[in-house]
Amino acid sequence: MNVTVACTQMACSWDLAENLDRAERLVKEAADQGAQIVLLQELFATPYFCIDVQERHFDLAQPLQGNPLIERFQKFAQAHELVLPISFFERAGPAYYNAVAIIDADGRIAGHYRKSHIPQFPAYEEKYYFSPGDTGFLATDTRYGRLGVAICWDQWFPEAARAMALAGAEILFYPTAIGSEVFQPDLDSRDHWQNVMRGHAAANVMPVVASNRVGTERSGEIKMTFYGSSFITDHLGNALVTADRDSATVLTATFDLAAVREYRRSWGVFRDRRPDLYGSLLTLDGTQRADGRVR
Amino acid sequence: MNVTVACTQMACSWDLAENLDRAERLVKEAADQGAQIVLLQELFATPYFCIDVQERHFDLAQPLQGNPLIERFQKFAQAHELVLPISFFERAGPAYYNAVAIIDADGRIAGHYRKSHIPQFPAYEEKYYFSPGDTGFLATDTRYGRLGVAICWDQWFPEAARAMALAGAEILFYPTAIGSEVFQPDLDSRDHWQNVMRGHAAANVMPVVASNRVGTERSGEIKMTFYGSSFITDHLGNALVTADRDSATVLTATFDLAAVREYRRSWGVFRDRRPDLYGSLLTLDGTQRADGRVR
Repeated sequence: MNVTVACTQMACSWDLAENLDRAERLVKEAADQGAQIVLLQELFATPYFCIDVQERHFDLAQPLQGNPLIERFQKFAQAHELVLPISFFERAGPAYYNAVAIIDADGRIAGHYRKSHIPQFPAYEEKYYFSPGDTGFLATDTRYGRLGVAICWDQWFPEAARAMALAGAEILFYPTAIGSEVFQPDLDSRDHWQNVMRGHAAANVMPVVASNRVGTERSGEIKMTFYGSSFITDHLGNALVTADRDSATVLTATFDLAAVREYRRSWGVFRDRRPDLYGSLLTLDGTQRADGRVR
Repeated sequence: MNVTVACTQMACSWDLAENLDRAERLVKEAADQGAQIVLLQELFATPYFCIDVQERHFDLAQPLQGNPLIERFQKFAQAHELVLPISFFERAGPAYYNAVAIIDADGRIAGHYRKSHIPQFPAYEEKYYFSPGDTGFLATDTRYGRLGVAICWDQWFPEAARAMALAGAEILFYPTAIGSEVFQPDLDSRDHWQNVMRGHAAANVMPVVASNRVGTERSGEIKMTFYGSSFITDHLGNALVTADRDSATVLTATFDLAAVREYRRSWGVFRDRRPDLYGSLLTLDGTQRADGRVR
């Protein structure tokens, strides 16, 4: 029951058609290397428009249904029998989300997740564009396994990884857009970013796949360089493959999910959890509440 | 506001007086290197008696109050102005716990924690000896900072690390006893073990200190070799110092806790948590319950 997964990375521009062509070429390249599940980076259809605050960027959003981006990759997934988590800017009535559609190998949309944790830093102006997601953390059944997919800033939260694992996920996927900090040019969060996700893999005893963009993007005075470094870990948190900081790249790894499941079961961490002691996790301020409720 | 912490590791035997002398020498050596908080390994006063099931080992337990082991290190802590988390086998009425007393630099017992997650593997027969702890996850104020202390198997659970962070901990300490698996001689969990804790540091943006024993211990046919590898990470999850697998060792690292606190605050992960979506973490089976209660 081996499954081959791929992480990918690429630069994006305001030539939107070229972004899609480039993404499709990367997916094809991954498929040619035997990948069955291919992860593209966060919001690969456009530049990372959250680099600044521009009303017109809301025009980039599309609904889940009848979305040309998703439909294009549904056809591609069906033709090549691939599972493709597709990150997109979602419009839903008056609301806007940072979302992902998980396309199964038959082209069907098998899952739909909305980013739960929304960051806000200079040049990561996400709280302006996106409402915090309301779907909760999901595990999606696909032809090649039960996937947990969360988005970028979600990857910093052990709670999200654990909730996906508890929902039955067997591999965790994180499409990402992260790079330099405009007002802290010396700050390089790459190792921190990888350490957190290697921890999710190790703690939940399952592989983690992360795809991050590369390239430099500009808006007026603001310039951001994404650091790539997309990677795949094993179920012990060891990085098996890691991309460089600036190349368009496809990397793959193959897992025996049945063997990983047996190891996870034997390791006992899901037997010995203490939900009776975790009440404070349902608060922001750490207050223990006897009834487990949030204030 | 710098604080210097030390991890230590040593071998233990049935010469119980020698275990204490050896531990005291390590603490003294750490203090001579400038350490203010010194972490000794789990159950350093005895061999790791959980290697097998022997009724007589319950005789090793002592209550928290009037405990000669703790009193000895209270005097030592006061004399040298050290903070010492002291792991001990606790008897409390009819109950037995795997516990730690956190001794402040004035010799006072500032905190008392009982191991919450109890493992059970061949040669780690802890469910025979210890009831699961009932104290919850604590942060203990000491002269040199607010410490989160949990014990060995607890270190595999992101929930425990997060709960200590939410309670205000600024450094996480894990006394440990881990090594070979008697029925799986090829299994080496060391990197997995480090990856999980590096993840706790990175996710909670605070240093982690782990002390593990070394040496080979035997009971009848059972033989276990502890892998040491005690380590200290920075607040980004990078290992700053790591001990080898077999030497008695003291390693130190110095942190500016105010600077770490500012970084943690600026990074935003404690701002953006979504307690409203974490309900399944209060269950073992992942079931979402509308009221957040455990069944």
